[in-house]
Amino acid sequence: MRYASLLIPTLKETPKEAEIVSHQLMMRAGMIRRVAAGIYEYLPLGLRVLRNVETILREELNRAGCQEVLLPMVIPAELWQESGRWEFYGKELLRLKDRHDREYCLGPTHEEVMTDLVRREVNSYRQLPLNLYQIQTKFRDEIRPRFGLMRGREFLMKDGYSFDVDEAGLDKSYDAMYEAYSRIFRRCGLDFRAVEADTGAIGGKSSHEFMVLAESGEDAVFSCTHAECRYGANAEKAESRMAWSAGTPVSAPMETVDTPNVGTIEDVAKFLSRPAADFIKTLVYDTDQGPLVVLIRGDQTVNEAKVAARLGLNRLEMASDRLVEEVTGAPVGFAGPVGLKNVRIVADHSVSSIADAVTGANEKDKHLVHVVAGRDFPIERTDDFRLVQVGEACPRCEQGTLRQDRGVEVGHIFKLGLKYSEKLQCNFLDRDGQLQPMVMGTYGIGVGRTAAASIEQNHDDKGIIWSVNLAPFPVQLVPLGTGDALAKAVEIEKELAALGIECLVDDREERPGVKFNDADLIGIPLRVTIGEKGLKEGITELKLRRSGEMEKIPVADTARVVRERIEALRAESA
Amino acid sequence: MRYASLLIPTLKETPKEAEIVSHQLMMRAGMIRRVAAGIYEYLPLGLRVLRNVETILREELNRAGCQEVLLPMVIPAELWQESGRWEFYGKELLRLKDRHDREYCLGPTHEEVMTDLVRREVNSYRQLPLNLYQIQTKFRDEIRPRFGLMRGREFLMKDGYSFDVDEAGLDKSYDAMYEAYSRIFRRCGLDFRAVEADTGAIGGKSSHEFMVLAESGEDAVFSCTHAECRYGANAEKAESRMAWSAGTPVSAPMETVDTPNVGTIEDVAKFLSRPAADFIKTLVYDTDQGPLVVLIRGDQTVNEAKVAARLGLNRLEMASDRLVEEVTGAPVGFAGPVGLKNVRIVADHSVSSIADAVTGANEKDKHLVHVVAGRDFPIERTDDFRLVQVGEACPRCEQGTLRQDRGVEVGHIFKLGLKYSEKLQCNFLDRDGQLQPMVMGTYGIGVGRTAAASIEQNHDDKGIIWSVNLAPFPVQLVPLGTGDALAKAVEIEKELAALGIECLVDDREERPGVKFNDADLIGIPLRVTIGEKGLKEGITELKLRRSGEMEKIPVADTARVVRERIEALRAESA
Repeated sequence: MRYASLLIPTLKETPKEAEIVSHQLMMRAGMIRRVAAGIYEYLPLGLRVLRNVETILREELNRAGCQEVLLPMVIPAELWQESGRWEFYGKELLRLKDRHDREYCLGPTHEEVMTDLVRREVNSYRQLPLNLYQIQTKFRDEIRPRFGLMRGREFLMKDGYSFDVDEAGLDKSYDAMYEAYSRIFRRCGLDFRAVEADTGAIGGKSSHEFMVLAESGEDAVFSCTHAECRYGANAEKAESRMAWSAGTPVSAPMETVDTPNVGTIEDVAKFLSRPAADFIKTLVYDTDQGPLVVLIRGDQTVNEAKVAARLGLNRLEMASDRLVEEVTGAPVGFAGPVGLKNVRIVADHSVSSIADAVTGANEKDKHLVHVVAGRDFPIERTDDFRLVQVGEACPRCEQGTLRQDRGVEVGHIFKLGLKYSEKLQCNFLDRDGQLQPMVMGTYGIGVGRTAAASIEQNHDDKGIIWSVNLAPFPVQLVPLGTGDALAKAVEIEKELAALGIECLVDDREERPGVKFNDADLIGIPLRVTIGEKGLKEGITELKLRRSGEMEKIPVADTARVVRERIEALRAESA
Repeated sequence: MRYASLLIPTLKETPKEAEIVSHQLMMRAGMIRRVAAGIYEYLPLGLRVLRNVETILREELNRAGCQEVLLPMVIPAELWQESGRWEFYGKELLRLKDRHDREYCLGPTHEEVMTDLVRREVNSYRQLPLNLYQIQTKFRDEIRPRFGLMRGREFLMKDGYSFDVDEAGLDKSYDAMYEAYSRIFRRCGLDFRAVEADTGAIGGKSSHEFMVLAESGEDAVFSCTHAECRYGANAEKAESRMAWSAGTPVSAPMETVDTPNVGTIEDVAKFLSRPAADFIKTLVYDTDQGPLVVLIRGDQTVNEAKVAARLGLNRLEMASDRLVEEVTGAPVGFAGPVGLKNVRIVADHSVSSIADAVTGANEKDKHLVHVVAGRDFPIERTDDFRLVQVGEACPRCEQGTLRQDRGVEVGHIFKLGLKYSEKLQCNFLDRDGQLQPMVMGTYGIGVGRTAAASIEQNHDDKGIIWSVNLAPFPVQLVPLGTGDALAKAVEIEKELAALGIECLVDDREERPGVKFNDADLIGIPLRVTIGEKGLKEGITELKLRRSGEMEKIPVADTARVVRERIEALRAESA
């Protein structure tokens, strides 16, 4: 296609509202434009990238035996009321009324609609397993949309749902999706990790997030350093193999000490000349099951997701100052586990390693020393409630330790189990004629997010570096001048077309510098420069966007060499 | 693909809510399901058909130099306020508010958003012409959605917009779209007419509707019977070459006659023994420019669209009884043009042919005879305000007459001119550095509607008859039994795949009758039956869905012959 007739409004300046690289570069490369907060237009080059992601999705999902359907974006409220999410989902669910005052929402996800379809059309074990997906526009009314396609309100998503006769079936469907997702992101040319993720209080046996590694990623990703170990988890879920050696508990009795005007553990530690590891940190939470006290060693950090998941809490938030005072009888900053009444107390394993503990005295400007857990206060339950740290031993293998990377979540697979099938009565008759609920899984990939994550991971100060399978075109021809050079470019374009390769020909009347800068910004993997001087020598110049590597090629061989290079790049991410 | 693992829930019974054949058959063939009024789910076979329409759209539009973009479905109210349509559009525009109480609508069409994009990104004549399109989900809150995909609320549409420097440029863009649309519907295998359509009061130079001919079509389509004449128009727009021979006006003076208890023209004509063609029919309308009287010969019918278009009216509706009495001073049924004051009177050409007219006397139970237009009452304007009739002379050629067919509108192209570019200030700098508004065209095709119209035109009592390019699969293999026959089917499936042909293999454990009935219902163009008996004789049986023609083929030749037949079918609609 010809550059001059395409709408590619590149920008020299970085738009002020764009905070992260992918947003900046997609704007600057003329791929997207903003219509309203979190709502974008996709211009020709940007849409071509999204379509490339979609094609990879379709090919790999169809290969894995999934079937594509298309569900509506405007969903009747009744289905969401039936699942209970109409009330529960909050303001991200955009609700609306039609001319007859009937209530609907814009679909942020389609568990309800898909389960409703399947309960109507599938009723026998003979029709199972079934794995249905769609690629469709979703809407989530984010309170603070930002980062371009990373956290938009209207966005393209692939969402899929599996229906099985039993847990073993779900395991198989889930594993198939794990493999399909891995192939998808590999074909997108992405360096990614599939990491274990928290399934939250809503249940579900297991869940993996697919994280594209990028320094700018919002999420921390832990994984094992050992080459053959596949362990990885997000920060909320990550575990480690920690041996908390418990020393002999101090025999001295508990004692109150004055700690005037020192609030934080750091301050108190300094004041008492004791390490933070000798402290029992006491955190008070407000939960859907009442107030909760969580204890952890002073040098460790509580992982709230673990607390919620392990205790089956739907809501967990830091207690207000008022609630802290109510529970401890003291101002904030002096909470401790000793003497607390009518409140549930749980502790992280790390607490057991403190033989002679310091803790708040539930009294202003006082702490307790020589405290021993179990002796001086009861613990209802001890568990792993802790955020892991880099360098700790891998929980799966014997050799590796944990490393931490930043990542962008682009995909999520989740074993739902019976959550929706029971609520919506999505049942089937088994071999024995018994009615059983289907066992479900749910699987999502953000289409625009995958493109944006690719840019976060692959760019330099000149612009985007697309992988060959995502690039809007695999090759760009840059004739310098509009005479013989352009004529030759058009000839090469035809030769490439005959080889099944579409290219972008920069036929603009612009200076070479402008063309080269735009080419680097747009980030097409191969650039072929066709200059009048080179033509006299009988050569074109091939440049690889990623490495910057240049190569002179006989004019007549150009199309063939371009194809070879493209095939080599494709083979790398096959 | 394998039938048994696909979600194809065919129905034996016709669903009660489905009023027309396409709706009935898409439901019965398991292609669509209803979620709410006018909101559908597309199941695998139905979606494949839609994707086929989309592929044809993309290929032909890209070939015509159009560029694909993707605009949002959720549109900020400001843009619609700027164009004035926020107020004007009525309840079909579904309005909603986000969590911050900002107003949006679901896009029923995208003139505003596209014009806004272009005014931001295009500012020079050098960037024009530009023709942008998208294939996207639209929402129109129809008061009475019905007929399945024909009149849905949420539906897939291709909408395109052209931007030119002048009218001549628009003409060129418009003609290119006319040709592209013709190619698109030809490739869809449809018998269609491109007919002139009314541009309405909003202006615009010209407009064509693409009508798929089908007896069940909602619209009347007039066209010329002469083979070489391309004239066609919808009923609102259709004209004819009528010579209204005016006789010598009667010299007798006007006279009042009693017509007790006879109301309709038919009754009065009988009572007075005069033909209806001697009557001046007097119709009173309420319009945005005040009351209006339209006169027409008693045996003709007023075409309200023509009246509105030719007089530049935004609103035209039959007057209430009260307004009729106010204008004529008489009860309804006795209106006539003589003696009316303070009201605009216009007449169709047919009125001039009445030399000695009868008309209402504006008095209960009275008529006037020997009335002569011009002599006895004034006419402000005489024009073509008439619905044409079958058999009248073609307005374009000398040989043909008008025929009438029924049609389903599947596409619409429209010269917008400056309507949106002036309102939204979508300007460019011309060669002389002068700021000019862009000249716009708008072009739409209903994706699901095209599929549905194809069924209205192509079906029999057994089911759908898909054209080869729309069919979910070009060929269906029906092994009778699951042993050797199925094994052979899988072999042929592989041979076809190697030839680039995807097929549906009916691998279900069902009786031959069930398989044949479902195959006829689903309507795939070619069916290959593979029976144990045939295999012993070394043959398979090829059946054409449309003609019912059967052919025995040596097993080894099956894939090759299927490809030949498919290529032949494709050539027919190339």
